[in-house]
Amino acid sequence: MALALRLAERGLYTTTPNPRVGCVIVNAGQVVGEGWHVRAGAEHAEVHALQAAGEKARGATAYVTLEPCSHHGRTPPCTAALLAAGVTRVVAAMQDPNPLVAGQGLASLRAAGLLAECGLLAVEAHEINIGFVARMTRSRPWLRLKLAASLDGRTALQNGASQWLTGPAARQDGHRWRARACAILTGIGTIRHDNPQLNVRGVDNLVGALRQPLKVVVDSRLELPLDARVLGDGTVLVAAAVDEPARIAALQQRGAEVVLLPGPDGQVDLPALLNELARRGINEVHAEAGVGLSGSLLRAGLVDELLLYLAPCLIGEVARGMFDLPALESLAARRTLAIRDVRSLGSDLRLLARFS
Amino acid sequence: MALALRLAERGLYTTTPNPRVGCVIVNAGQVVGEGWHVRAGAEHAEVHALQAAGEKARGATAYVTLEPCSHHGRTPPCTAALLAAGVTRVVAAMQDPNPLVAGQGLASLRAAGLLAECGLLAVEAHEINIGFVARMTRSRPWLRLKLAASLDGRTALQNGASQWLTGPAARQDGHRWRARACAILTGIGTIRHDNPQLNVRGVDNLVGALRQPLKVVVDSRLELPLDARVLGDGTVLVAAAVDEPARIAALQQRGAEVVLLPGPDGQVDLPALLNELARRGINEVHAEAGVGLSGSLLRAGLVDELLLYLAPCLIGEVARGMFDLPALESLAARRTLAIRDVRSLGSDLRLLARFS
Repeated sequence: MALALRLAERGLYTTTPNPRVGCVIVNAGQVVGEGWHVRAGAEHAEVHALQAAGEKARGATAYVTLEPCSHHGRTPPCTAALLAAGVTRVVAAMQDPNPLVAGQGLASLRAAGLLAECGLLAVEAHEINIGFVARMTRSRPWLRLKLAASLDGRTALQNGASQWLTGPAARQDGHRWRARACAILTGIGTIRHDNPQLNVRGVDNLVGALRQPLKVVVDSRLELPLDARVLGDGTVLVAAAVDEPARIAALQQRGAEVVLLPGPDGQVDLPALLNELARRGINEVHAEAGVGLSGSLLRAGLVDELLLYLAPCLIGEVARGMFDLPALESLAARRTLAIRDVRSLGSDLRLLARFS
Repeated sequence: MALALRLAERGLYTTTPNPRVGCVIVNAGQVVGEGWHVRAGAEHAEVHALQAAGEKARGATAYVTLEPCSHHGRTPPCTAALLAAGVTRVVAAMQDPNPLVAGQGLASLRAAGLLAECGLLAVEAHEINIGFVARMTRSRPWLRLKLAASLDGRTALQNGASQWLTGPAARQDGHRWRARACAILTGIGTIRHDNPQLNVRGVDNLVGALRQPLKVVVDSRLELPLDARVLGDGTVLVAAAVDEPARIAALQQRGAEVVLLPGPDGQVDLPALLNELARRGINEVHAEAGVGLSGSLLRAGLVDELLLYLAPCLIGEVARGMFDLPALESLAARRTLAIRDVRSLGSDLRLLARFS
């Protein structure tokens, strides 16, 4: 199963909106077939592995990181393929959270007389598809908020300058996290200050064939400049709270799609936006936002994980910070996280912390 | 020499104002004597090691982490002791930065016919006495600034609440760093908000016999309340910028010493205060201060090292930050550090970063 998980990881940058899945066929203690899902519409991991195993699949055990599908999607059900190949035992790391499967895959295998088990390395399997699981179980993508700050928590100077706070290794690492996401989310403030392209760059040889994530801009009052670099290429979704047909038409002219999601406060309804992204098959959202949108996402309880790059420098209190949040009355009310990973990237530090 | 350095470390919490020194006597490939300096006025490391070696010191090599002294201080010169014991070779990790020694110790050994070398594990030897070296070479102690902050760089709520941001492991670690310092420095703001005792607590079994560092309060306008907990016990030095005899007398009545060090801006002259502390034999200063004094120390270029505890929580921009610094015009003007150490303490992180 550990090998199957490593195979699944090969799909990290490409399977969206599908989950990353790996499969290993073992016969008499020998690995006779390996496979992983590459991209939506292409064969599932099980089919790849069965093809590699050929006749050796007969009487074999299939280790698969996610419960095999039993429904006709863009490809035929994998349960049928496993049966047809003569596999006699299937070990899944976890049930498919997809309500179209949800245990039916394993049940149908058992009904056909196979031995079907579930739960081996379940935690690891869940991690690799944390976005897919989130979308399936709560109709909202996994949201990873990326920030780069000085040791005193400043993300930019008072005058907005923030390029470059961190070094090249941290910036390249940031592009890797962008690359695995299905969508990159930012706010109009960041567009104004940094005018980012919001695409994945410079990591082609690290992540393989490049798929550019959907770019999403939260722009309540439709202020996105028509010459913003974010409109340069790729698919852009602008979430707005005001219906201004001329402005919308101009943005459409520039290739962007505009969705109107007004919230009660006249701003974009962020939970509704995330539901909309889930509806579009977005599993993992990589957010890079300033103090305003970061604070709004946090206040709305929509941030699952913090990806924080700390540059070893001090900037001082008058500069820009990380989160606009209401004043707390007591420390007990603070938002706590658990630090899951810390590593050095050049002279910078990277922290990965998750809300509990 | 590595063993000698470990021996020197045993004096980490006690040798002030003297340096931490370890000594190992080796004869024919055998360690025949070990010693370390415990406290000022007591025997030096070499004497301890020679006593342990006895007759076996004859013809032996002495490894010592700091050049042996050649002057009469509170104890006789160690060079004389080494000669008298019949040691034939002395290897020092580094020259003594004390201008009263500064190579004369090794020179006098050579003049007496011994083989005397210098520089083995010099970097490590320098680290263990970084405060002593600073005091000797620049007449200013080494200043380590300790801060505890949330991941977004907030040290306290807007209402001042900061107890406890970090967990018990981080707080105990903080007391260990206090324990190795010769003085603990804070400002009147911290006294007002937190009313700290500013002593070393809860680490007796970790650091051995407890020596309480000098407490130093920067209190430009002599506003220290007479019932402040810092005045409870131990030696307290109040640095002020105004001469108010009645107020000074009241503080003296409470056991504090007051030094007047007015700077041109009406505040305490911080460089002068650090020179004064050096004059009093303070090697390492452990500063725990709020946004104001931390910023002032940083602006004056007096902070050598940052000891930063990061608690995995977010508090938001309206809360208190780390450093009051003037706005920067460009990122190139930011103060940069090098991160030297990162470790987990309970659910918190500890960073040690040094200015270059």
